[in-house]
Amino acid sequence: MTTIDLNSDLGESFGVYKLGNDDEMLGVVTSANVACGFHAGDPLVMHHTFETAKANGVAVGAHPSLMDFWGFGRRRIVGEDPKDIEKILVYQIGAALAVGEAVGHPVTHVKTHGVLGTMANEDPELATAIVRAIKSVGRDLIYIVMPLGENERAGDRAGLRMAREIYADRTYQDNGNLSSRKEPGSVIHDPAQAADRVVRMVTEGEIVSTSGKRMKVAMDTICVHGDTPGAVEAARLIKARLQEAGVTLRPFSEVV
Amino acid sequence: MTTIDLNSDLGESFGVYKLGNDDEMLGVVTSANVACGFHAGDPLVMHHTFETAKANGVAVGAHPSLMDFWGFGRRRIVGEDPKDIEKILVYQIGAALAVGEAVGHPVTHVKTHGVLGTMANEDPELATAIVRAIKSVGRDLIYIVMPLGENERAGDRAGLRMAREIYADRTYQDNGNLSSRKEPGSVIHDPAQAADRVVRMVTEGEIVSTSGKRMKVAMDTICVHGDTPGAVEAARLIKARLQEAGVTLRPFSEVV
Amino acid sequence: MTTIDLNSDLGESFGVYKLGNDDEMLGVVTSANVACGFHAGDPLVMHHTFETAKANGVAVGAHPSLMDFWGFGRRRIVGEDPKDIEKILVYQIGAALAVGEAVGHPVTHVKTHGVLGTMANEDPELATAIVRAIKSVGRDLIYIVMPLGENERAGDRAGLRMAREIYADRTYQDNGNLSSRKEPGSVIHDPAQAADRVVRMVTEGEIVSTSGKRMKVAMDTICVHGDTPGAVEAARLIKARLQEAGVTLRPFSEVV
Amino acid sequence: MTTIDLNSDLGESFGVYKLGNDDEMLGVVTSANVACGFHAGDPLVMHHTFETAKANGVAVGAHPSLMDFWGFGRRRIVGEDPKDIEKILVYQIGAALAVGEAVGHPVTHVKTHGVLGTMANEDPELATAIVRAIKSVGRDLIYIVMPLGENERAGDRAGLRMAREIYADRTYQDNGNLSSRKEPGSVIHDPAQAADRVVRMVTEGEIVSTSGKRMKVAMDTICVHGDTPGAVEAARLIKARLQEAGVTLRPFSEVV
Repeated sequence: MTTIDLNSDLGESFGVYKLGNDDEMLGVVTSANVACGFHAGDPLVMHHTFETAKANGVAVGAHPSLMDFWGFGRRRIVGEDPKDIEKILVYQIGAALAVGEAVGHPVTHVKTHGVLGTMANEDPELATAIVRAIKSVGRDLIYIVMPLGENERAGDRAGLRMAREIYADRTYQDNGNLSSRKEPGSVIHDPAQAADRVVRMVTEGEIVSTSGKRMKVAMDTICVHGDTPGAVEAARLIKARLQEAGVTLRPFSEVV
Repeated sequence: MTTIDLNSDLGESFGVYKLGNDDEMLGVVTSANVACGFHAGDPLVMHHTFETAKANGVAVGAHPSLMDFWGFGRRRIVGEDPKDIEKILVYQIGAALAVGEAVGHPVTHVKTHGVLGTMANEDPELATAIVRAIKSVGRDLIYIVMPLGENERAGDRAGLRMAREIYADRTYQDNGNLSSRKEPGSVIHDPAQAADRVVRMVTEGEIVSTSGKRMKVAMDTICVHGDTPGAVEAARLIKARLQEAGVTLRPFSEVV
Repeated sequence: MTTIDLNSDLGESFGVYKLGNDDEMLGVVTSANVACGFHAGDPLVMHHTFETAKANGVAVGAHPSLMDFWGFGRRRIVGEDPKDIEKILVYQIGAALAVGEAVGHPVTHVKTHGVLGTMANEDPELATAIVRAIKSVGRDLIYIVMPLGENERAGDRAGLRMAREIYADRTYQDNGNLSSRKEPGSVIHDPAQAADRVVRMVTEGEIVSTSGKRMKVAMDTICVHGDTPGAVEAARLIKARLQEAGVTLRPFSEVV
Repeated sequence: MTTIDLNSDLGESFGVYKLGNDDEMLGVVTSANVACGFHAGDPLVMHHTFETAKANGVAVGAHPSLMDFWGFGRRRIVGEDPKDIEKILVYQIGAALAVGEAVGHPVTHVKTHGVLGTMANEDPELATAIVRAIKSVGRDLIYIVMPLGENERAGDRAGLRMAREIYADRTYQDNGNLSSRKEPGSVIHDPAQAADRVVRMVTEGEIVSTSGKRMKVAMDTICVHGDTPGAVEAARLIKARLQEAGVTLRPFSEVV
């Protein structure tokens, strides 16, 4: 029986600013990656997101970023020392761990946000710094990675527990990285099309690049976006189609 | 034999901005309260401060603040919900705990920064929220408080381990709170005078208000400031005078 | 023939965060107060708001705030020197003036945001500092004030051009200040009720406090909120009702 | 008779954080470039810097930056739209213009900070966006540029008044750009050596790259750094040597 997790990047509101429909999304997904205040989120939003996740039986993870609130962690910032980025991640993961303690819903995993994961997926030194950050906070945290890149290799070398992730609404390059958001067609806006893709990827155990390259990969979780209009409906559709195809939805933290 | 701790608020630099002479100060004090990024400090500065403290055998604590970088945590911000402030503190303490894990020098204590402690010392609801924040992160952290105020009472009610603090270079009001920095004479600039005061307070076990009121209080630690010119020399003088008077200097985390 | 202006606080989005429906609101109001980046807004949002206002023939003003992004300029911050606040306002108004130059749609007015206006309305020294800031940037800017408070008095003393403002959806205290948002009933959520109030206030030239006190005041502009669900429809209704009552809508900058 | 200006980047303090010794530096230089709050500086610091410059007869300019407070405007941020950067500059220049109005010491010039100038010097589209920002605020502002790069070319195309700048304490690449700070030897720490270089460059009208390439360029101003220990003494030495060599020191805004 195939089991898979549905994860979403949540907790990205800040002060008066609302982003996404987290409360509904937490009724659909099985894992939530919660922003830690560096690209989005704040301590109050984190707290609320953890509490709502707990009430819904949704596993929670830290979703740290480069220090770039203005750019929502999507600006490619060149030349920072990986050792400095490591410290920035330790801080954010620690903040999330404490929120988990306070709420009584411990953090199970870490997923990097935005350009950081993309940059690290092509840079072994940066990928290793991220892995060191996760290990150094001293808990048995699971690391969500895209298969086939430097992040997975760095996690493997360090013996980290990992969850391999595929994207429902993004296309792939031949190296397993996502196509740039700026490339036309790289974001799949039609939920039915995204759901079809996901069911095929999960049941066949393969991702397919835009050039048609088929890559057999491990898959533990599917990323669905939470901050676009129609995100909740799209996630519900993907979930329903997976269940129709006989796939069980469950937090990866209970599996990997 | 009298034992006492010398603590200082450190790690208040940010990016290119340097504040205080932490590296030297960490050769003098026995405990350091490290800024957590909300009134001052950043993840890199925190890391460096923890590492230097470890090398010097100095105990480290989290030094969280209201969210007020522009005002250095000294602006009195009215009307915030204590429950929100609690969440803001959980975040900061968690960040500090993780830095301690990463560096291999665990956090032993918490001390609130700036106006937050002053406000809480007169507001039982806020004082209780701070205590809840400290307890909820799930470690046996010691809480540094000024004796005689709501902070101490809230800690007592919750059964927190506490360290009672006196100030070397500040004068007291009759309620045990510090006199406002804006009041003339409230900051003692002459190190010899501050050292005399400290030795007298420690050996007599009393603080004396500006009006002459004598208050018998428990004392576990002395706060010396780190961000003024001559701060290191002043701290050294206080330490020397205490040692001459037969007092042993030692982190309160090994004592209380 | 009675003439009045309809103003709204706009340009409060930031980066990826959207607040309000500015593009539609700018099809309804006759003046826009644009956030300057200190409580909300950013240079890109300002630019877009100015351009859209220009395309709609809507007058634009600077809407400066205390330095409090986290609190959206609504936190009461006590003890800041009015001279410092003056400098903070000069900066923000200057930024807005330059955006107006760049877009070819010059700033006509200034309205303070959030708690700043409320605090100044009861503090002559702060009210005077705001007036100095407006005068010192060296243009013939109009100052939007609530009638009857220290702000109007300070503007009068300085000989500033002023526009007197009433609120469509807020209730009044006996001193002419708004009731606190925290007080039940202080925000009128029913658009029809708000529209009725406005028509009555405008045609009778009076505001009425929650205790029933009637105050005859000058009125040049009506503030309608832009950041609540249904805000655009509410503004349209108020506009329609005023026009039905024979009132002409026009930017106050063409009148006062 | 040769005339030249001495400029320095000042006003880089923030809140409690002090950077550089501006008050003394303003007794030496003839022009000051004042940080506008995006990489450093704040409205209070700007105000103080403008007032002190006025008292010393020092010309003032806006010194805008990318939006990067954490990185002090030195992080290379890739992929931002030049049109967005243009808006970010308009905002900052406008803020500085208003401070100049308020203080009675109008802004004479603009100089970009940090990595922004370096990036633009190799990117015609970005260089043109900067020039548009300067022109669009509607004053006859002088643009400080390094000779020989895209910035100078963009200014020439737009018919901007320009001041050509050389650096006292930095070495040059063959394209006229500064060598990276990360390259060993790229910053000249010995004041006497820097002074010798300056006198030679000014009297010979040439800059020399690290590879020995000699480039004849126009020179209106010399940049001396203000934020390093010994900066004031170094600036005084350069000034004295230039005067001994018969060169007159004077704001370029009175010359170009």
